[in-house]
Amino acid sequence: MAAASLKQYIPAIDWLFNYRREDLSGDVVAGLIVAIMLVPQGMAYALLAGLPPEAGLYASILPLLMYSVFGSSRVLAVGPVAIVSLMVAAVAGDLAEVGAPQYSAVALILALMSGSFLLLMGIIRLGFLVNFMSHPVISGFTSAAALVIGFSQLKHLLGVSLPRTHHVHEILTATVQRAADINAATLMIGAGSIAVLLFCAGPLERILRNRNLAPTAVNVVTKSGPLFAVVLFTSLVWALRLDTKLGVRVIGDIPSGLPPFSPVPWDSGLWWELIPAAFLISVVGFIESVSVAKSLASKRRQRIDANRELVGLGAANIGAAYTGGYPVTGGFSRSVVNFTAGANTPLASLCTAGLVLLTVLILTPLFYYLPNAVLAAIIVVAVVQLLDIKTLRHAWRYSRADAAALIMTFISVLAVGIELGIVFGIVASLVMYLWRTSRPHVAVVGRVGDSEHFRNIERHEVRTCKHVVALRIDASLYFANTRFLEDTVLRHVSENPELKHVVLICSAINFIDASALETLYDLIAELRDGNVLLHLSEVKGPVEDRLRRTDFIDQLEPGRIFLSTDEAMRALECV
Amino acid sequence: MAAASLKQYIPAIDWLFNYRREDLSGDVVAGLIVAIMLVPQGMAYALLAGLPPEAGLYASILPLLMYSVFGSSRVLAVGPVAIVSLMVAAVAGDLAEVGAPQYSAVALILALMSGSFLLLMGIIRLGFLVNFMSHPVISGFTSAAALVIGFSQLKHLLGVSLPRTHHVHEILTATVQRAADINAATLMIGAGSIAVLLFCAGPLERILRNRNLAPTAVNVVTKSGPLFAVVLFTSLVWALRLDTKLGVRVIGDIPSGLPPFSPVPWDSGLWWELIPAAFLISVVGFIESVSVAKSLASKRRQRIDANRELVGLGAANIGAAYTGGYPVTGGFSRSVVNFTAGANTPLASLCTAGLVLLTVLILTPLFYYLPNAVLAAIIVVAVVQLLDIKTLRHAWRYSRADAAALIMTFISVLAVGIELGIVFGIVASLVMYLWRTSRPHVAVVGRVGDSEHFRNIERHEVRTCKHVVALRIDASLYFANTRFLEDTVLRHVSENPELKHVVLICSAINFIDASALETLYDLIAELRDGNVLLHLSEVKGPVEDRLRRTDFIDQLEPGRIFLSTDEAMRALECV
Repeated sequence: MAAASLKQYIPAIDWLFNYRREDLSGDVVAGLIVAIMLVPQGMAYALLAGLPPEAGLYASILPLLMYSVFGSSRVLAVGPVAIVSLMVAAVAGDLAEVGAPQYSAVALILALMSGSFLLLMGIIRLGFLVNFMSHPVISGFTSAAALVIGFSQLKHLLGVSLPRTHHVHEILTATVQRAADINAATLMIGAGSIAVLLFCAGPLERILRNRNLAPTAVNVVTKSGPLFAVVLFTSLVWALRLDTKLGVRVIGDIPSGLPPFSPVPWDSGLWWELIPAAFLISVVGFIESVSVAKSLASKRRQRIDANRELVGLGAANIGAAYTGGYPVTGGFSRSVVNFTAGANTPLASLCTAGLVLLTVLILTPLFYYLPNAVLAAIIVVAVVQLLDIKTLRHAWRYSRADAAALIMTFISVLAVGIELGIVFGIVASLVMYLWRTSRPHVAVVGRVGDSEHFRNIERHEVRTCKHVVALRIDASLYFANTRFLEDTVLRHVSENPELKHVVLICSAINFIDASALETLYDLIAELRDGNVLLHLSEVKGPVEDRLRRTDFIDQLEPGRIFLSTDEAMRALECV
Repeated sequence: MAAASLKQYIPAIDWLFNYRREDLSGDVVAGLIVAIMLVPQGMAYALLAGLPPEAGLYASILPLLMYSVFGSSRVLAVGPVAIVSLMVAAVAGDLAEVGAPQYSAVALILALMSGSFLLLMGIIRLGFLVNFMSHPVISGFTSAAALVIGFSQLKHLLGVSLPRTHHVHEILTATVQRAADINAATLMIGAGSIAVLLFCAGPLERILRNRNLAPTAVNVVTKSGPLFAVVLFTSLVWALRLDTKLGVRVIGDIPSGLPPFSPVPWDSGLWWELIPAAFLISVVGFIESVSVAKSLASKRRQRIDANRELVGLGAANIGAAYTGGYPVTGGFSRSVVNFTAGANTPLASLCTAGLVLLTVLILTPLFYYLPNAVLAAIIVVAVVQLLDIKTLRHAWRYSRADAAALIMTFISVLAVGIELGIVFGIVASLVMYLWRTSRPHVAVVGRVGDSEHFRNIERHEVRTCKHVVALRIDASLYFANTRFLEDTVLRHVSENPELKHVVLICSAINFIDASALETLYDLIAELRDGNVLLHLSEVKGPVEDRLRRTDFIDQLEPGRIFLSTDEAMRALECV
C-alpha cells in the first residue's frame, strides 16, 4: 500500500527496481545520441534566450535527473527548447539588458515560478487548464514563433549587429539598412553549417542506409550533424584565427565546473509582474511536452498521466532554477530521436545528463572558437520544422472558424508579440466557440407517419398541429445561448397566433446552467402572459435531478415534463 | 417596400402614424409620473457620477427623444441609472478631479463612445456579445455595485467629507474616524427623506388603495415620494436657512436654459484609454435595459429586437454626449412605473422629456436649497432593491459552480473595483463553463436484452462483449474536452487487453471542432498502434457532412461510420 502510493508519486521506483538488463544498451546508445544533439542545441537555445551558453548546458543536467524521478514518460527528452527560449527572451528583454545580472535573475525566477505553477497544477489536478489552447491556436502560435526565432538568428548568420526586437519587419528593415556590414566569413560559416545540417538530416541517411550500415550507427552518425558542424567550423576558426583576422564572432570563454548553486533572487515586485509570463511559459511548455510524450507512449501502449507529467516538468524547472539554468520542457525532436534510438527507460536521460555534466566539467575550453553562426544555423534548421502549414490547410477545409483562429493567432503574435499574441489567440478561440454555441441548431419536429418518431419538418415528411410546436434544441443550455433560445421560442409564439403549447425536446441537452434556468423561468412567465404553456420532453436523468432541486416543476405547472415526445404530443392532443 | 424598410430602421414611424386617440391619456399620465421621478433621480445620479446636477437633467431630454425614434420598446424609460453612473464615476475619477473640465470631458467621451459601440453592435448584429455575461455574474455585479453606491452616499447623508474612494472598507474606516464631524441637521434631513420615501412606497399605497382612490391617482401620489421629499426639505432648509446656520450642504446654482450643445473633446490618447470602460458601460447598460424591455414587452405579447434596441440606446447615448449629459440606458424601476402607469407608446417618454425640458428652462432656481442629503436618500432607497439575494439562493441550490461565479464576481467588484471586478467575473464564468464541458459525461453502453437499444451499463441490465466497447459521449467535441476524450478512450484500451474495437456513439455530438478532429486522427493512429480499431455511430447529418470534407473517412478505415449502434455491434460480431 505505502509502496504503491510511493510509486504513484515517484514513478522512478517502478522502472529503477524493475530494470531489465536487455534495456541497457538501448538506453545508453539513445542517451549518447541525445547528448550529442543536446550540447550544441542547449548552448544555441541559451543564446536565443539572451543567456550565456553555459545556462543551456546547466539546464540540461539536473532538470533531466528531476524529470527521470518524477515524470511519467519513459522516453521524454527534457531540456531547453526553442519556443520557451524565445518566450524567456521576450520577457527578460522587456525588463533588463542582455548580459545584466537582472536578466539572468529574470530567467531563474521564470524557471522557479513556472516550475511551481506546473507542480501546483499537477498536485491539485488542474491539468485541464491547458485545454484552453485549441489546436489551431497552438499551431498558429508555433508557426509565428518559429518565424520570429528564425529571423532573430539573422544577425548571427550575417555577422551584423541589429537592434534588439522580436518584430520580423523591424529585423528585416534593420538588416537591409546594414547590408554593407555583412561579415562574409560569418555568412559563409552560417551557410556552410546549414549545408552540413541538411546533408546529415537528409542525403547522408539515405547513403548510409544504402551501404547497409547497422541502424544504430546510421542513427548516431545522422543525428551528429550539429556536432560535425561545431567541430568543423570551430577547428576552422581556430586554425585560421578567423575571429581576430576576419571578425567572426565566437562563443569565447565558458566557465568549467559543476553547475553552480544559484539562489533565486527575491523581489516581490518583479515576481508579481512575472506571474502571467511564467504561467504562459508553463502552459506552452507543458503542451509541447505532453503532446510528444503521449504520441510516443501510445506507440508502445504505455500511458501518460497528465498530472504526473505536470509534477515531473515542475520538478525539472525548479531544478533548472537552482542550478543556473532557465525554463525547460520536453523537446519534440530530441524526444523522437531518443525514442527511435532505442531508449527504453529514463536511464537514457540520466546518461544524457551525465555526458552533458562531463562536457561542462572538462570540454568547455574546446568551445572557445565555436562561431555564433554555427549555433544560429542549428536553431534555424531546428525551427523550420515547426512551421505548420498542414494544420492551416486542414482547418481551412474543415472549419473556417478554426482556420480564422489560427490565422488570427499567427498574425497577432507577429504584430503584437509572443505573449500578448498568444493571449489574443486564446481569447479569440473562446469567443469563436461561444459564438458557435450561442446560436445552436433548433429543429421544429413533427410526427413521422403514425410512428412514435419525430423528425425535423424541413428534412422529412411529417405531421404537425397548429396548437402545438415541438422544438428540439441541439445544445446544452447555458448563458451564451439562453437569449437565443428565448428569442426562438417567442418568435414561434408571435408568428403562430393559434399556438397553445410549446414542447422543448431536451434529448441533446447535457446540462442547463443557472442563467438558462432563469431564462426558462422568464420564458414560462412570458408564455403564460400570452396564454401559451411550456412543456419539456426527453429530459436526461442528471438534468432532471437538478431541476427537481428547485421549484422549477411547480413554476412549470400546469406545463409538464414528459418522458417522450410521443407521450407529450398525445397528452396535448396532437396525434 | 421602401416604407417597410424605413419602418424597420425607424420604429417611430410605426407608432406615430398609427397613433390611436385612446392611448393618449395613458401616455400623458405615465409621462408625468416618470418625469416626477426622473427630475430628482436624474440630479441624484449625476451627483453619484461626480457631475453637476444639471448633467442628469440634460441626459433626460434628447436621449429620450432619440430612443423614441430608434428604439423598439414602447415603454422603456431611458435616462441616467445608478450603476452606469457609478461606472462613470469610477472611470472619470481615475483620470481627473471631480469638478475639473477634464472630468466632464471624460463623461461626454464615454457617452459618445458607448453610444457608438451600441450603434455599431446593432448595425453589424453583434448583440450576441452581451451573452458573455451570465446571469450569476450580472447578479453578483449588481449587488456589489449597489453596496458600493449605497456606501458612497454615506458622506452626503452624514454631512462629512470623506476621501474619494469606491472601496467599502475605506469608506467605513474614514467615516468612523470622522464620526465627530457628523452634521446633525444633515443626518436628520437624510433620515427624514428615507422615511418619506419608504412611507410613500409602502404604507401610503395601502392606505390610498383602502380609500378606493382611482388607481391613477394612487400611482401618481405614491411615485411622487422623491418629489415630496425634495419639496419638504428644500422648503425647510430655505425657511430656516439651515445651509448657512447649520452647515447643511445644498445643491446651489443650477444654470437655467436649454441643454447646451457640447462638442465632445478630441484627445486620441484619452479615447484609446477609455475604450475598455466605454465597452463595459455599453454592455452593462444594454443588459439592464434589454432585460426590462423584454419582460415588459412580453406582458403585452410585443417583441423586442435586440439589435434595434442596440441602435436605439446607441442613438440615445450619442444624443447625451452632445447635450452636456453622460451615459444613459433604460432604467429598471422607471420603466416598470412607466408601464404600470399606463404608457402605451413612446409618446409617454416624449412627455417626460418635455417636462424635464420645462424644468431646466424655468424651475432650476427652485432647487437652490435642495439638500444633497435628500438626493443621497433617493439613491440609497433606489439601490437597495438591486441587492439580489434571491439569485444567489437559487444558484446555490441549483448549481454550486454558478453560485461560485456569483460570489466571486461580488467579492472581486468589492475588492478590486467595478471595472476589473466585472471582467474578472466574466473570465471566471467562462473558465467555469469550460471546466464543466471539459469533462463531459461518457457512458459505456450495452445492449438491452435482445433489443436494438443500448443503455448505460451502470444504470441498466445490459449485455456487452469483451472485444468491443461502445462509448456514448454526451457533449460536442471541442478543444477543451478533446484531451479528456482521448484519455478516456485510451484508458479503456489499456484496461482491457482483449479489446479490438472502440465504437464512439455520436448522438449527442452537435459539432466537432478542428482540435477535436485532430485528436480523432491521433486517436485512430494511437489505437492502431495497439491493434484496436475506432468506429463511429449515430453521427448527426451536419457533423458527418463536415467530416466528409476531409480525409477522415480514409484515415478511419478499416474503421467505419455506422448509422446505428445496433448496426455497428452486429457488424463487429457483438450480438
